[in-house]
Amino acid sequence: MTRKLHLNAFLMGVGHHEAAWRHPQTEPARLTDVRHYQELARIAERGKLDSVFLADGVALHGNVRHNALGGLEPLTLLSALAAVTDHIGLIATVSTTYNEPFHVARKFASLDHISGGRAGWNIVTSAGEAEARNFGVVRPSHADRYARAAEFLEVTRKLWDSWEDDAILGDRVAGYYADTGKIHPIEHAGEHFSVSGPLNTSRSPQGHPLLVQAGSSEDGKEFAARYAEAVFTAQQTLTEGQEFYADLKRRLAAYGRRHEDVLILPGISPIIGSTEREALRLEKELEDLIIPAYGLAQLAHMTGIELTEDALDGPLPDVPVETEGAQSRRKLVVDLARRENLTVRQLLNRLAGGRGHRVVAGTPEQIADQLQEWFVAGAADGFNIMPPILPGGLSDFVDHVVPELQIRGLFRYEYEGRTLRENYGLPRPPSRYAAGRAARREVAVAR
Amino acid sequence: MTRKLHLNAFLMGVGHHEAAWRHPQTEPARLTDVRHYQELARIAERGKLDSVFLADGVALHGNVRHNALGGLEPLTLLSALAAVTDHIGLIATVSTTYNEPFHVARKFASLDHISGGRAGWNIVTSAGEAEARNFGVVRPSHADRYARAAEFLEVTRKLWDSWEDDAILGDRVAGYYADTGKIHPIEHAGEHFSVSGPLNTSRSPQGHPLLVQAGSSEDGKEFAARYAEAVFTAQQTLTEGQEFYADLKRRLAAYGRRHEDVLILPGISPIIGSTEREALRLEKELEDLIIPAYGLAQLAHMTGIELTEDALDGPLPDVPVETEGAQSRRKLVVDLARRENLTVRQLLNRLAGGRGHRVVAGTPEQIADQLQEWFVAGAADGFNIMPPILPGGLSDFVDHVVPELQIRGLFRYEYEGRTLRENYGLPRPPSRYAAGRAARREVAVAR
Repeated sequence: MTRKLHLNAFLMGVGHHEAAWRHPQTEPARLTDVRHYQELARIAERGKLDSVFLADGVALHGNVRHNALGGLEPLTLLSALAAVTDHIGLIATVSTTYNEPFHVARKFASLDHISGGRAGWNIVTSAGEAEARNFGVVRPSHADRYARAAEFLEVTRKLWDSWEDDAILGDRVAGYYADTGKIHPIEHAGEHFSVSGPLNTSRSPQGHPLLVQAGSSEDGKEFAARYAEAVFTAQQTLTEGQEFYADLKRRLAAYGRRHEDVLILPGISPIIGSTEREALRLEKELEDLIIPAYGLAQLAHMTGIELTEDALDGPLPDVPVETEGAQSRRKLVVDLARRENLTVRQLLNRLAGGRGHRVVAGTPEQIADQLQEWFVAGAADGFNIMPPILPGGLSDFVDHVVPELQIRGLFRYEYEGRTLRENYGLPRPPSRYAAGRAARREVAVAR
Repeated sequence: MTRKLHLNAFLMGVGHHEAAWRHPQTEPARLTDVRHYQELARIAERGKLDSVFLADGVALHGNVRHNALGGLEPLTLLSALAAVTDHIGLIATVSTTYNEPFHVARKFASLDHISGGRAGWNIVTSAGEAEARNFGVVRPSHADRYARAAEFLEVTRKLWDSWEDDAILGDRVAGYYADTGKIHPIEHAGEHFSVSGPLNTSRSPQGHPLLVQAGSSEDGKEFAARYAEAVFTAQQTLTEGQEFYADLKRRLAAYGRRHEDVLILPGISPIIGSTEREALRLEKELEDLIIPAYGLAQLAHMTGIELTEDALDGPLPDVPVETEGAQSRRKLVVDLARRENLTVRQLLNRLAGGRGHRVVAGTPEQIADQLQEWFVAGAADGFNIMPPILPGGLSDFVDHVVPELQIRGLFRYEYEGRTLRENYGLPRPPSRYAAGRAARREVAVAR
């Protein structure tokens, strides 16, 4: 079987470009309209994409004065998308810092049941100060957040395993619904959590939801190497993409994992035209709608660099770029400005499309060339597609780029699997408790 | 306008009778099948019912060896039901003891957007010991749980109000998405919670979801009088129902609320037959499927009274029935056994149908008589319908009892409102922040 690439549609309001809501082809009033997202999910499914994905934070981030913010909570929304689709994977962002593992395990198990095995969890640790203030705590350090996240994952995985696959007997004649010997308290007692279990939702079609991660710091990459099955990442150049890809794959062995156990999906915002000129015109239209005050606020949020409008036509001031802790996005932004010798205004224009993700304008063939280049050159197992405007940017991708990828033999014509894991080519994890009993039985036999 | 009654369908797996899963008319494998619940919601909507409701706990309650337990998380499920219905209200149980108000406010705001204004929240405080052990805490006292619940409500209501109704401008030409003067930090700092806000989901169609409560203790009744807009309650006799109804309505004035601001909906499990004989046969079929060991475990869970199978054919032993704290269900059960002089086995049979809720077997007309009697005699504003088996028990109610109620002028023929609040005849709450500004403006004018 030839290696095929995997495609995820990253859904964000009416588009990833920060001025999307001002573009005449979008309808910002649809930000809280479930039919908008149902339409997007159906378009992605028409294109045989692996999954749709919703980012999230637990505070009102960004300046709502100048952008369409304040949309829907991802898990709640994805359940409504599950109801109108059959194949597309459904990936929700949920924080490990401000949640309890019992609730999170249960909601993903429920979404996995509801969708017939299509749930995925993008695990984030919530770096923001505003988020901490919505939960009455002092913002924990980067290291503390990742330590909590690791234990959180241990607990949720135990809870998902707490019902073995064959625990339900359903013997109505004898009156036995379940074999309670196959439903296990987890009795987890750790530094951050103490959870008895078992879960009160039975084991779901995928066993565990697909585990996704997007941190690019040292802690983030180690966490991904240990737990993640798909990684979303922002990489501006092919060389950086190759380095990240090789680095992350190299870390897997330490956790007993294989190269193919993790898919790496760099983000890309494709600005598509039937001609290159048309694509560049759309890019220019969006650029003309950018509000500098909004871009400066975003820059400050992403990098901590606070500037006023007076600074727009000068270069980015000198700032330290040490990648300590959560600063990986800051380094990417500063590197971009220096490498291309950008003024602050030019930098804001470059960030407006994808908040640091790569933006590529061109014909469907040119976009496909870019995807193919990264895929073949060891920088990607697939891509996180971030359409500049929605739904138009997604339907353009599905109707024009996907067929080009198919004809090149790079992408599927039909869904091959039944679950998200199967479409991503990833195994279904066994229940650790079932494995434990099998092992004990083997020991008993050997004696 | 004549007073009409309100009907809520209380959905529970394959039926409320504890032996429902063993009855040949149910399919216990549908416990985690979203299509089962979608079918139930559509049936309820066909009958013009006000709402469907899902109970919940955050631990595996009951003995799964002998009953179909381990279903889906309500909020996740209701969102999938919203996607396939247009009118029916969607009420989810969520605990205030093991959650954070920011998450809960946001999820209900999202469900309210997704459903077009049909979300309701059944507020519970999670009395169980097993629940505390899933969150690593010592079970809080009854009083502490209710104190936390009250502050939790204050915070969620502030968050729902944090975006005023007209905060979104959507002015794409000038580049103003929102009037940030109408999006308010809440800066709540209290004993249990410290939450800055604003919410990161805009104000939803109903403003606040419908608030529902079901505690019958002193604290529970005070909480309901202060916050609830609909109350679910278990009452065995008309006299008890009238007393509870009058008691709760009397408490409203202290909170500046009117008689009609709260609807009281006693639970009833209708066992329906085309003839009385047929109804009694169905009741007997279910009774014959009861597993005494399960019933004894339920009795212990509900009342704290622990008995063995040796006790089945004797009377209920003497136990104290002081209604302190969470003991209201214990009092109901002991009163029932003494009033009717039941053996333990007879008591278990009586509890098997509705865990202490009233069970009535009869023809559609006989069921309608019962509902009418309570409605007219000041014991109910409507009912929480708990079908013994699902979906059959619900479709029987909708197809045979509802038309009888309609012809008697007691129930609507069509939905009159657009939202759950409108169908329940309850007002849409204004944003407190908008009211504050209007008041300040008046003061300024008066000066």
